[in-house]
Amino acid sequence: RPVREVLFFPSRVTCTEALLAEPGPGSCPCPCALPHGDSALGRLLRRLLAARRSLELCVFAFSSPQLARAVHLLHRRGVRVRVVTDADYMAVNGSQIGRLRLAGIQVRHDQESGYMHHKFAIVDQKVLITGSLNWTTQAIQSNRENVLIVEDAEYVKPFLAEFERIWEEYNPA
Amino acid sequence: RPVREVLFFPSRVTCTEALLAEPGPGSCPCPCALPHGDSALGRLLRRLLAARRSLELCVFAFSSPQLARAVHLLHRRGVRVRVVTDADYMAVNGSQIGRLRLAGIQVRHDQESGYMHHKFAIVDQKVLITGSLNWTTQAIQSNRENVLIVEDAEYVKPFLAEFERIWEEYNPA
Ligand SMILES: [Zn+2]
Ligand SMILES: [Zn+2]
Repeated sequence: RPVREVLFFPSRVTCTEALLAEPGPGSCPCPCALPHGDSALGRLLRRLLAARRSLELCVFAFSSPQLARAVHLLHRRGVRVRVVTDADYMAVNGSQIGRLRLAGIQVRHDQESGYMHHKFAIVDQKVLITGSLNWTTQAIQSNRENVLIVEDAEYVKPFLAEFERIWEEYNPA
Repeated sequence: RPVREVLFFPSRVTCTEALLAEPGPGSCPCPCALPHGDSALGRLLRRLLAARRSLELCVFAFSSPQLARAVHLLHRRGVRVRVVTDADYMAVNGSQIGRLRLAGIQVRHDQESGYMHHKFAIVDQKVLITGSLNWTTQAIQSNRENVLIVEDAEYVKPFLAEFERIWEEYNPA
């Protein structure tokens, strides 16, 4: 049965270590004081971390440390990660884009006067994750936001085509 | 066959008079200099103007004159229109919210510190229109944006519930 899910934010603040920690010899239950149950952010992370082959990410604002850890983790696992973002937000304090680049992840940004205002991701060319949510802690914890998760080629295909169009257009070469 | 459509912006600038003009005895082809063909904004207007019974609108920023004319038109046709918006953006120059209220349309806004950052509409409790697009001319004409149109109860129902939750929560009474 194809994935069809809706997430609403603000998300309950929960510990996401169990999702994001690299498995090590000594992993044991997290002792931190945060609740360890389900949350909208936890569900979003889980959908992203399901990627096995590719992640296309096209997001206006990206400052969330947890979402950045998820993207780094995928990159280290060998998933092909490509990121498109907005030049203006990229320059603000707290943006994760510089760190993604330092880790060797491919990033391209706009050179336009308008905003690159999309907020979508595509997992394994099969699942579209899209909505109003920028990838910032403010949006996750304080704003009313929505994210749709859609496994349906009729929606995924045009978003993939939009990603490839933008990816080529923002090619600095 | 249920509606499933994706719109990408920026939209080509086209004349939308044919969609928005009230039919009168002397209506004839629009003589203006703009192109009169199809556009993303034209398609969005058409989906909204299809409403016969109800329009729930939950949008962070609303300044587009064409989209405001569409909402006014629906209200005058007797469609039950309810609008939820963000208090901060409502106060900016160019917001259409004041004019909607003057026309007798019900509007509620947040009192919270976070943003009411949704950008969705629900037509006749049946078709969900949602994405990254704020209802501003800047977003329509200059930004990279997406809008999904989804006629599927699995997505429409949770968005309706979210609307009703917010509508009650923002009740000033
Ligand atoms: Zn913990
Ligand atoms: Zn015209």
